[in-house]
Amino acid sequence: MADGMLKIAICGGSGYTGGELLRVLSNHPLVTVTAVTSERSAGKTVTDLFPNLHKYSNLSYEPMKIDKILHKADLFFLALPHGESQEAVNFIFLHGKKVIDLSADYRIKDAKIYQEWYKVTHGFPNTLKKAIYGIPELYRNEISNADIIANPGCYPTGAILGLYPAIKNKLIDINFVVIDSKSGISGAGRKSDITFSYCEVNESFRAYSITNHRHIPEIEQELSAIAGKNVKVNFTPHIAPFDRGILTTIYSKFLKRVDIKNIIEIYRNTYINEPFIKLLEEGKLPNVKNVRGTNYCEIGIFVNKRTNTFIAVTAIDNLMKGASGQAIQNMNIMMGFDEKTALDLPGLFP
Amino acid sequence: MADGMLKIAICGGSGYTGGELLRVLSNHPLVTVTAVTSERSAGKTVTDLFPNLHKYSNLSYEPMKIDKILHKADLFFLALPHGESQEAVNFIFLHGKKVIDLSADYRIKDAKIYQEWYKVTHGFPNTLKKAIYGIPELYRNEISNADIIANPGCYPTGAILGLYPAIKNKLIDINFVVIDSKSGISGAGRKSDITFSYCEVNESFRAYSITNHRHIPEIEQELSAIAGKNVKVNFTPHIAPFDRGILTTIYSKFLKRVDIKNIIEIYRNTYINEPFIKLLEEGKLPNVKNVRGTNYCEIGIFVNKRTNTFIAVTAIDNLMKGASGQAIQNMNIMMGFDEKTALDLPGLFP
Amino acid sequence: MADGMLKIAICGGSGYTGGELLRVLSNHPLVTVTAVTSERSAGKTVTDLFPNLHKYSNLSYEPMKIDKILHKADLFFLALPHGESQEAVNFIFLHGKKVIDLSADYRIKDAKIYQEWYKVTHGFPNTLKKAIYGIPELYRNEISNADIIANPGCYPTGAILGLYPAIKNKLIDINFVVIDSKSGISGAGRKSDITFSYCEVNESFRAYSITNHRHIPEIEQELSAIAGKNVKVNFTPHIAPFDRGILTTIYSKFLKRVDIKNIIEIYRNTYINEPFIKLLEEGKLPNVKNVRGTNYCEIGIFVNKRTNTFIAVTAIDNLMKGASGQAIQNMNIMMGFDEKTALDLPGLFP
Amino acid sequence: MADGMLKIAICGGSGYTGGELLRVLSNHPLVTVTAVTSERSAGKTVTDLFPNLHKYSNLSYEPMKIDKILHKADLFFLALPHGESQEAVNFIFLHGKKVIDLSADYRIKDAKIYQEWYKVTHGFPNTLKKAIYGIPELYRNEISNADIIANPGCYPTGAILGLYPAIKNKLIDINFVVIDSKSGISGAGRKSDITFSYCEVNESFRAYSITNHRHIPEIEQELSAIAGKNVKVNFTPHIAPFDRGILTTIYSKFLKRVDIKNIIEIYRNTYINEPFIKLLEEGKLPNVKNVRGTNYCEIGIFVNKRTNTFIAVTAIDNLMKGASGQAIQNMNIMMGFDEKTALDLPGLFP
Repeated sequence: MADGMLKIAICGGSGYTGGELLRVLSNHPLVTVTAVTSERSAGKTVTDLFPNLHKYSNLSYEPMKIDKILHKADLFFLALPHGESQEAVNFIFLHGKKVIDLSADYRIKDAKIYQEWYKVTHGFPNTLKKAIYGIPELYRNEISNADIIANPGCYPTGAILGLYPAIKNKLIDINFVVIDSKSGISGAGRKSDITFSYCEVNESFRAYSITNHRHIPEIEQELSAIAGKNVKVNFTPHIAPFDRGILTTIYSKFLKRVDIKNIIEIYRNTYINEPFIKLLEEGKLPNVKNVRGTNYCEIGIFVNKRTNTFIAVTAIDNLMKGASGQAIQNMNIMMGFDEKTALDLPGLFP
Repeated sequence: MADGMLKIAICGGSGYTGGELLRVLSNHPLVTVTAVTSERSAGKTVTDLFPNLHKYSNLSYEPMKIDKILHKADLFFLALPHGESQEAVNFIFLHGKKVIDLSADYRIKDAKIYQEWYKVTHGFPNTLKKAIYGIPELYRNEISNADIIANPGCYPTGAILGLYPAIKNKLIDINFVVIDSKSGISGAGRKSDITFSYCEVNESFRAYSITNHRHIPEIEQELSAIAGKNVKVNFTPHIAPFDRGILTTIYSKFLKRVDIKNIIEIYRNTYINEPFIKLLEEGKLPNVKNVRGTNYCEIGIFVNKRTNTFIAVTAIDNLMKGASGQAIQNMNIMMGFDEKTALDLPGLFP
Repeated sequence: MADGMLKIAICGGSGYTGGELLRVLSNHPLVTVTAVTSERSAGKTVTDLFPNLHKYSNLSYEPMKIDKILHKADLFFLALPHGESQEAVNFIFLHGKKVIDLSADYRIKDAKIYQEWYKVTHGFPNTLKKAIYGIPELYRNEISNADIIANPGCYPTGAILGLYPAIKNKLIDINFVVIDSKSGISGAGRKSDITFSYCEVNESFRAYSITNHRHIPEIEQELSAIAGKNVKVNFTPHIAPFDRGILTTIYSKFLKRVDIKNIIEIYRNTYINEPFIKLLEEGKLPNVKNVRGTNYCEIGIFVNKRTNTFIAVTAIDNLMKGASGQAIQNMNIMMGFDEKTALDLPGLFP
Repeated sequence: MADGMLKIAICGGSGYTGGELLRVLSNHPLVTVTAVTSERSAGKTVTDLFPNLHKYSNLSYEPMKIDKILHKADLFFLALPHGESQEAVNFIFLHGKKVIDLSADYRIKDAKIYQEWYKVTHGFPNTLKKAIYGIPELYRNEISNADIIANPGCYPTGAILGLYPAIKNKLIDINFVVIDSKSGISGAGRKSDITFSYCEVNESFRAYSITNHRHIPEIEQELSAIAGKNVKVNFTPHIAPFDRGILTTIYSKFLKRVDIKNIIEIYRNTYINEPFIKLLEEGKLPNVKNVRGTNYCEIGIFVNKRTNTFIAVTAIDNLMKGASGQAIQNMNIMMGFDEKTALDLPGLFP
């Protein structure tokens, strides 16, 4: 480890988002991963679980005891199950270190809404107030000063980025918004579950959690903040037979007649300095394949003149811009690094 | 060939829908396929092109010369490209034989709308009037007396079946309907096109033809007929990496508060005698995998109470209920056969 | 149930081979399934577990208590894990009913070899002697008189059918045989195992159980019987990202120079009356896609003149000719039904 | 472009290997791509054809006129079809510039053998003598002084690396070698061909070019050079439904009894300084998924004691170590760069 490098711990490092943090950080010139935890895999090396990550053949998983690893790192990524992050985030924060939480535990600012959707009480409402929702395109300044980042969910990232300029500019009717998302299988996590075994999902396509997915309050919180009033959405996630990616198709009525060139211009102006937004030219179509393995978000905007409807399509890699990539983007902002550090590599094709 | 069997010709029998007609008909006890055409593959046998169809190892493709094959069959399936069916349908009809056209040429009753979307003039407006839109759940009586069936498009089938009871019973606001469909790759046909080569579509997911897919006028024609007034829809097709199937997710506002049990009951009553509609119990989710290789349409109905929104999800096999299976269902009705003949086999799983 | 139909029980009916037995038997005109067992899913219906099998919506799983279900059926299919079939087969046999065992428990005639490879003692050596290895192409006569069928493993079926005529006719050097097999994922069974979850096997290809797969003694037993002397083989299974099918590529030195036409002729003569062997013409290549969902075995024979090597390639559906299809073929033979009954449908393509 | 950077031209840059060269070079700190050619796509930008390669949004394809682009670059990668490289390689060489040819045109040292297998005369036998077969593990010294690299074929790379230590150390019987390879679909190239369209290859697995694949003379040339005598092999390629990767399973008789630990030790010693060889521990299994997107070659060695057989399994990414990655490794060696430059990133998982 070179002197002066930022020391990183990854709590919950055996799943797909943990592996993705490790993959990207292995190429980051300003940080070094000093600890990684996993209950199930304690004692094994990272390379045992991720044969692609040969640079970590000497880094072993240890059990998640936050008091034991606190001294090992300056900044903590938490990729733990929902509910299990609450206490660790609070502990790290109270000890004056920085934390980026990839769970939902600090995303919902209203503890009652969190409790209603996640069926868990929030034990640290004061700490919750300190957390910044880590979507840089909306909150870059707040992120740069934050100690706690609540890293956004995968679906909310694609939905919010697709709607932000349209709502901010009051172009669409926020009383009826349809968000129809299609996710690859890695969104279900790395786990032993017959539902996501190969033969069950291959050659399949289905919706799930219709009307009650836990990402709904997160989407509504952020869209309401943009709109300045209460927004309720129809959000339907689907699961599709590919590894990575979320394509989100969004529909809403225009409040007035809008020209396609104007609305693309509004999006372009909003995102002009955003390093990870790829606003497509008129008529071009986002594809999850184009952003695979990258932190980019492709956005295509369409106008249905016959029905006066706004249609936005966004494509992200759920493990990158939808999770670990965005978390590292947030870290870069928090630490004053160039925001694109380690995140600017091209994706694989095919 | 047994005496008294219905003689069938398949015009355009080298593509996926042609192959699917042959597959299903090979197990139909009351018909025999006597001719099959293909320009590209004339001289080859069916088994050369479809190794799964070993029963047709002696049936060879011949060029599509409708006057030469007219005498060979009693009923003609046309699986030709759009525009190429017009004349053949007219010819067969004028010679007093029955024809089921799987192209779009006779689906749109208003020749001007057909011309607007398909960029082809309709040369046979009088014959067009004789064609029945072949969706048995809406037009079974008309089909039983028809000479010409315009077999529905794949997307329209899934969309119309999902909306029919809701519109007929005036439950939803037809001024804003979103139809978001996801199709397997076989919907693109069996052709040499780099866009649909394996490495280009594997691990991909994208929308296409946003706001201008040619199935829109067909969907709107039928929904307008059900509603008794003009309906315009937002229809977005997507392409996903699996062979067969279309999942369609449909959204509209309820005109009043509706209970989930009531609306499922309305759907159940509408479809109670339909042999190929599988209305799912409350909370169960349609999946293209469940209907693969079959003529069934799974329908799931959902209510978003928070937004008072109607959500319907339908799953069909695009090559079966979305094309060849429905065509054979129509044939069975036309000929007075049991409607399920040759169509009642279970699908493959996995 | 029609009078006179054969009553069938399926013990272990919740996995992929159980589901496949149910799928094929649902279309068999001479049998009726009267009982189906599953510990894990007792109380659920078949349709709950297999949405494609809607004909069994009233057939519920019951626990596997062989003494309780003995009276319910005339013939029993056992799709139980290895080791768990021993006692049930013996019990059914002693009570004078017929049994087709899809496990390995009665395949290996030498109980010591069984014990060595399966790490289980065989408790019923006398019953073991009554079992017939159920590969009809080799043992049709014995099968027709059998009470107990040991249904072959998936890999042995493809390997034995590819080698049988060559070894029987002493064409090849049995001192060095390479059998390189590639299986789809359904061969791993329907279970909750992270190793076979979608994201772990998609876009993967690997060998496994090199030199020690449990199908080796079964392959060697049968090839030795054909050769009339001891044969030892190199067998390597691989796992590939598709649902169904096994392609087996087999190599051995010719004992003398052999012409491709001669050897194809020898294969043709051997299999001339076999309803499920598709011997391909010279130069044509077997493909698992061609036999998917069917009981057929495609065989292609090749000669490498430069190295004087015999190469055979076979393709089967591991769940059909490699398991349930062959089991039903055996049932048809045992019961004197037409051997092809319920097994002669074309596969799906694509 | 920074001063002093090596200027690179890529001739044939619209296919998968061209795209892969561009992807890796975009992250190479010592080179800059100054020209890229494509007949079909002249005028389009790289990003038009490869949406993942956004760094080349200003680099446009130009027609392949070697005299026009000669001055633009110091080193040329040729990813042209076989036969079309001959003249360009000669031209570049005669003008004193370096060239790495990814076609087969300069791989086969014996022009008669080249002609026999490729059905093309070699017009530049003197230039052919200057070409070095670019597999660094065998010819690193020669590569470092070369002007022309004949970059190895994908299958030969996996086969040769798996056999090299065993043959060099005279462990195995080179009179009977079986090389059974399984490739992903990208090996077929980026082209419009119905055979490789999604629905034709998805859920398929088959062998092809049995006994006559054009990589055979290349494999035999190199194995013969290692052995010091003539080696003929049985090589069978297969095509499997995944994007990238080749798994090769190799069989040969041991000349004497060999212990697994000894042979692994021999392999370890041979490859101890090789940056891209991952020799696996005893019992571990190579997987194409582990090397996807990387230049690594995983090697697993196995001993079948029952048959005294050597088994090696190798896994590479066909587009990387099997083509473009190895080409860039060769460039790094030729130019005196650190051999791992731009090639040391972890692969994607999943």
